[in-house]
Amino acid sequence: MATPPPASTRRLLPLSLGLFQGALLLFFALFVTYDEPSAVATEAEDGTQAAEQLPSIFPLFQDIQVMLAVGLGLLLAFLPRYGLSALTHNFLLLNFSTQWALLLQGLRHRYRHGEVRLGLHNVLAAEFAAVTVLISVGAVLGRTSPCQLLAVAFCEVPVYLASEWLIVTQLGVRDVGGTITIHVFACYFGLGVSKALFGTQRRPAHPKETPTPRSDLLALVGTLTLWVFWPSFVAAPCQPGDAQHRAILNTLLALSASAVTTVVASSLLESGGKLSPGHLQNGSLAGGVAIGALADMPITPAASLALGSLSSLVCLLGFRFLTPLLARRLALHDQCGIHNLHGLPGTLGAAASAVAVLLSHIDGSRVAEDQGGCGGGRQALWQVAGLAVALGGSLLSGMLAGAVLRLPCLAPPPEPLCFEDSLNFRIQGQAESPGMGDATEEVALKERV
Amino acid sequence: MATPPPASTRRLLPLSLGLFQGALLLFFALFVTYDEPSAVATEAEDGTQAAEQLPSIFPLFQDIQVMLAVGLGLLLAFLPRYGLSALTHNFLLLNFSTQWALLLQGLRHRYRHGEVRLGLHNVLAAEFAAVTVLISVGAVLGRTSPCQLLAVAFCEVPVYLASEWLIVTQLGVRDVGGTITIHVFACYFGLGVSKALFGTQRRPAHPKETPTPRSDLLALVGTLTLWVFWPSFVAAPCQPGDAQHRAILNTLLALSASAVTTVVASSLLESGGKLSPGHLQNGSLAGGVAIGALADMPITPAASLALGSLSSLVCLLGFRFLTPLLARRLALHDQCGIHNLHGLPGTLGAAASAVAVLLSHIDGSRVAEDQGGCGGGRQALWQVAGLAVALGGSLLSGMLAGAVLRLPCLAPPPEPLCFEDSLNFRIQGQAESPGMGDATEEVALKERV
Amino acid sequence: MATPPPASTRRLLPLSLGLFQGALLLFFALFVTYDEPSAVATEAEDGTQAAEQLPSIFPLFQDIQVMLAVGLGLLLAFLPRYGLSALTHNFLLLNFSTQWALLLQGLRHRYRHGEVRLGLHNVLAAEFAAVTVLISVGAVLGRTSPCQLLAVAFCEVPVYLASEWLIVTQLGVRDVGGTITIHVFACYFGLGVSKALFGTQRRPAHPKETPTPRSDLLALVGTLTLWVFWPSFVAAPCQPGDAQHRAILNTLLALSASAVTTVVASSLLESGGKLSPGHLQNGSLAGGVAIGALADMPITPAASLALGSLSSLVCLLGFRFLTPLLARRLALHDQCGIHNLHGLPGTLGAAASAVAVLLSHIDGSRVAEDQGGCGGGRQALWQVAGLAVALGGSLLSGMLAGAVLRLPCLAPPPEPLCFEDSLNFRIQGQAESPGMGDATEEVALKERV
Repeated sequence: MATPPPASTRRLLPLSLGLFQGALLLFFALFVTYDEPSAVATEAEDGTQAAEQLPSIFPLFQDIQVMLAVGLGLLLAFLPRYGLSALTHNFLLLNFSTQWALLLQGLRHRYRHGEVRLGLHNVLAAEFAAVTVLISVGAVLGRTSPCQLLAVAFCEVPVYLASEWLIVTQLGVRDVGGTITIHVFACYFGLGVSKALFGTQRRPAHPKETPTPRSDLLALVGTLTLWVFWPSFVAAPCQPGDAQHRAILNTLLALSASAVTTVVASSLLESGGKLSPGHLQNGSLAGGVAIGALADMPITPAASLALGSLSSLVCLLGFRFLTPLLARRLALHDQCGIHNLHGLPGTLGAAASAVAVLLSHIDGSRVAEDQGGCGGGRQALWQVAGLAVALGGSLLSGMLAGAVLRLPCLAPPPEPLCFEDSLNFRIQGQAESPGMGDATEEVALKERV
Repeated sequence: MATPPPASTRRLLPLSLGLFQGALLLFFALFVTYDEPSAVATEAEDGTQAAEQLPSIFPLFQDIQVMLAVGLGLLLAFLPRYGLSALTHNFLLLNFSTQWALLLQGLRHRYRHGEVRLGLHNVLAAEFAAVTVLISVGAVLGRTSPCQLLAVAFCEVPVYLASEWLIVTQLGVRDVGGTITIHVFACYFGLGVSKALFGTQRRPAHPKETPTPRSDLLALVGTLTLWVFWPSFVAAPCQPGDAQHRAILNTLLALSASAVTTVVASSLLESGGKLSPGHLQNGSLAGGVAIGALADMPITPAASLALGSLSSLVCLLGFRFLTPLLARRLALHDQCGIHNLHGLPGTLGAAASAVAVLLSHIDGSRVAEDQGGCGGGRQALWQVAGLAVALGGSLLSGMLAGAVLRLPCLAPPPEPLCFEDSLNFRIQGQAESPGMGDATEEVALKERV
Repeated sequence: MATPPPASTRRLLPLSLGLFQGALLLFFALFVTYDEPSAVATEAEDGTQAAEQLPSIFPLFQDIQVMLAVGLGLLLAFLPRYGLSALTHNFLLLNFSTQWALLLQGLRHRYRHGEVRLGLHNVLAAEFAAVTVLISVGAVLGRTSPCQLLAVAFCEVPVYLASEWLIVTQLGVRDVGGTITIHVFACYFGLGVSKALFGTQRRPAHPKETPTPRSDLLALVGTLTLWVFWPSFVAAPCQPGDAQHRAILNTLLALSASAVTTVVASSLLESGGKLSPGHLQNGSLAGGVAIGALADMPITPAASLALGSLSSLVCLLGFRFLTPLLARRLALHDQCGIHNLHGLPGTLGAAASAVAVLLSHIDGSRVAEDQGGCGGGRQALWQVAGLAVALGGSLLSGMLAGAVLRLPCLAPPPEPLCFEDSLNFRIQGQAESPGMGDATEEVALKERV
């Protein structure tokens, strides 16, 4: 029986988190105020009435919060004995990463402008940074300690902010739904972490990682929650008006095509024409990942449908053929298949955005200043360059982060206790997992908190 | 042990669905564009600022998506071993039917106006068509194959569109919440399908169709989700302003009265004053079904309360007395009790709408053109005529569709595999359902997709 | 084997509820109409366009409905064999209390102004009254009959309305998010009920009250739902504009700090650095409870963070030390730990609001009429006075209500059937709880309703 890490190591989590909360509080106390009324009016971008209304972004913001806290959490609960941990780690990382991104953004702003004014749009931008962390850790779900996950967040958020600044602000890449800056970046960062953390050692299938119909059902509810609110995720950063309306419709069509194509492809890929729950949980969302880079462009409805279908096809083919291949050849461990849901459809979406700007002569924000703009061809090159920056930068920085995760003080869980809530939680009675090493100790703690 | 259908038959699902996706893509590529800015402004119907704001219908649209994908899916998960299938089939039918309705609407528009412009209101209208399918298949849930369900959707959507056009556009029936056009129509279509499919043969209770407390809990969460967002469903098609505000309040009151009356009636109908989970799951929503036909009319709050109470009472009496009677006398199989939740309260709501127009001298949209209008008496007749058209047309067309479902190529599930996820899904490990015929085959497929 | 209450007693629930529905209907029929167009425009408070738009409060209202019906219901489902009852009782109490508050508000308005006009803001105010009931019954969850719970609601709603009128309208206490008027009031009312109901007799731990990982998972989903929508709860009663924007941001920051601090504190308080599911389910929300009293004030972001951290710390210390102490010394039974989630953070928030007004010279609504106002010091005193009124009044009235609950006709559940759904529900097959007394009787009722 593997022994759990000593208590001294387990103090690292509360100490580091507590220190971070203190630092955040200090920074906020010294430098951060709320947006003034006029600033709020500017942010709402709908003229004179802004200060008198609920911020128009708020309903979209709430939708995104549901996606991240509830939808993504449930999707990760497909591991039958690891649901509490998946949901809790997802929730902790969402909050820690958002705060960490707010702090870093604030520091940059403080350095440049002297004072930091906080508004709902800042929180939304910080939450997008958190999304990358939530995606990346999917590659190592169940085989990592909370300290290791926090280390991922600590490393990934600043790299994301730099990468997003480089890709969107400097290169002028168009990516309203975060296909390149969020999904591709997060995927290859996560794979880099996984590769550096687990090395060349191939992990055999763990007896506890097989989902049950019940855990698959909860995960499917998570998928449906993400599916429903995905248009809000893509539309939130859009300018209100036609572009936002178009982004909503494009995303709706892409997601709908993904859902139907996933059933088609899963039925063809599985023996006996049955469906795979894992295919449904991931493939239905692939269209949303891919459409992000071009959702606000004047593409045709047919293009959205085609991209949605194609991306879920690519996603399922990835699950069927590429994941086993990568595991065999590169010993690459990808627990949730983030490469199939985020990497492949994201790359596809980036390529599609290059084609779309090529065909429609769209210029990016970088050249919008001098209104003359360069041709669509040049912008198409920038789209590809953005993809390359996101992909290369994330893979490299992810591997560095993964090397950090090998530090013994981060307390990686021993193999037999992987995918097991009792490693992270005080489970009362322990009736659900008899035979665990610390069962007797647990039984002693009877009282309900 | 009944043998599952041969693999050749199971290819029908991906082939037909794939063909459909291709046809949809072709049609969209040839004929469909997005709404132009000006068209969007018209759609938003709130004057000059429209093009600068999030479409005001979008939050309601999202609420409805949650109802259909998550709420209804969970409600159908009351079958303890069929949750994955219920959720997945509901999701597939939602997407397929919406796309099919978009295609049919587009064809009609193309034929008349030459070009098809797609906006959020079109998607919403198509989704209402999908709702009828999701309701109808409740009558045959668990005893049908995915191909049979798609056949239902294929038959029902065009009939719904024709019926809705006849009832609302031609007869001028007032039915903002779809009581007649959606609920009554879908119920009797589904019962027609069930009757024609299962014939005169009475089905004994299946050992796997008994809900467990756990599956009842999930289904109740689905009910609550539907209950919460029902006002959005009724208000979405309303003109913004007073009528919409009234529709929200009327629906809220009707649903609240339904919830309380359901507890009263269930407690009286069950032995020992206990409650029945099935009563709660359905009765709490009956008021929402009934109020739809008159939610935007200037009725009194007391009328909404009374209608909500009465409809849940009718719903529960239906479960207690009418369903067993219909099963005994007509061998009518109604798995989810759609007759009690949609048929009876829908008919009640239609009758109430006739009374309401009679009392308040309301004219329908059909006669609104010449502003003079006919008296409330004539409009009341139209309401009853609309009910008759919906009821008769759906029953007849449903029976025709049910006859189509008897085609052997649609692969009806063998009786012992009904209500069983493993018929439709590759279940890993198969620990949840030992003794199934294909368990050994399944166990061989170990790797997590 | 304890015998369930005789059927005659169990008729009390449907009879009393039915009578109430009748009385409500009568009152509505006689006196209540809907708001006229102009009144609606006034309510929307955004000028001339109001009557043409969806009420701006509607999205917030829907968020709150999700919190109360779904989020809170799931949170209470942490008792593994009592999930159906928890969800159903929560739903019933939500509806009954809202209707009861509407009736009482209407009676008062009728007495003063002659006619009662119902709008969405009235329903929202009534729902806030219902929230107090839903919180209070957490103290006695699982050990009470539905009749006893209705008796709590019957007693609590009028006291809440009087208390809220006294605190907000008369004393001019600022409490936009209901920290004092809702959370503190509800907590001590519930503790008063518990004390008077269970007396000095200490209850041993019941074998069925230990949560399982699965029930803890559902409860955590409930917590996350509440966490996500909490900003809507605080922002709904705010004036649209800067104050509302500030309330949203303050609540977001407080909740985020709570989430992180909960992990820190739980890890320090539990042996081996593990987390307690109960800590997470409650501590993550403590910041939302505390921030309500000062969310719309011009406090700094750092203050929100600090208050969020502090309140979750207080909450977890309460679970760890105060609850066992109160149980030992006062034999106080608090099933859900409402004192830790609502009492302690609420008191903390009230104190913080007093400090905030002291520092920022804010005047309450009571003195806003003469615009000169008194100094912040006087308003700070009113904040403390409001806390004292809420605390004292609720404790006293709660104990009176608890005495009422001892009436034998309210059918308290026998000890062995506590925390057991089969007491309240007809469970089919009864496979989940073998050995229950009425299992054979249940098995006889085979048909699915």
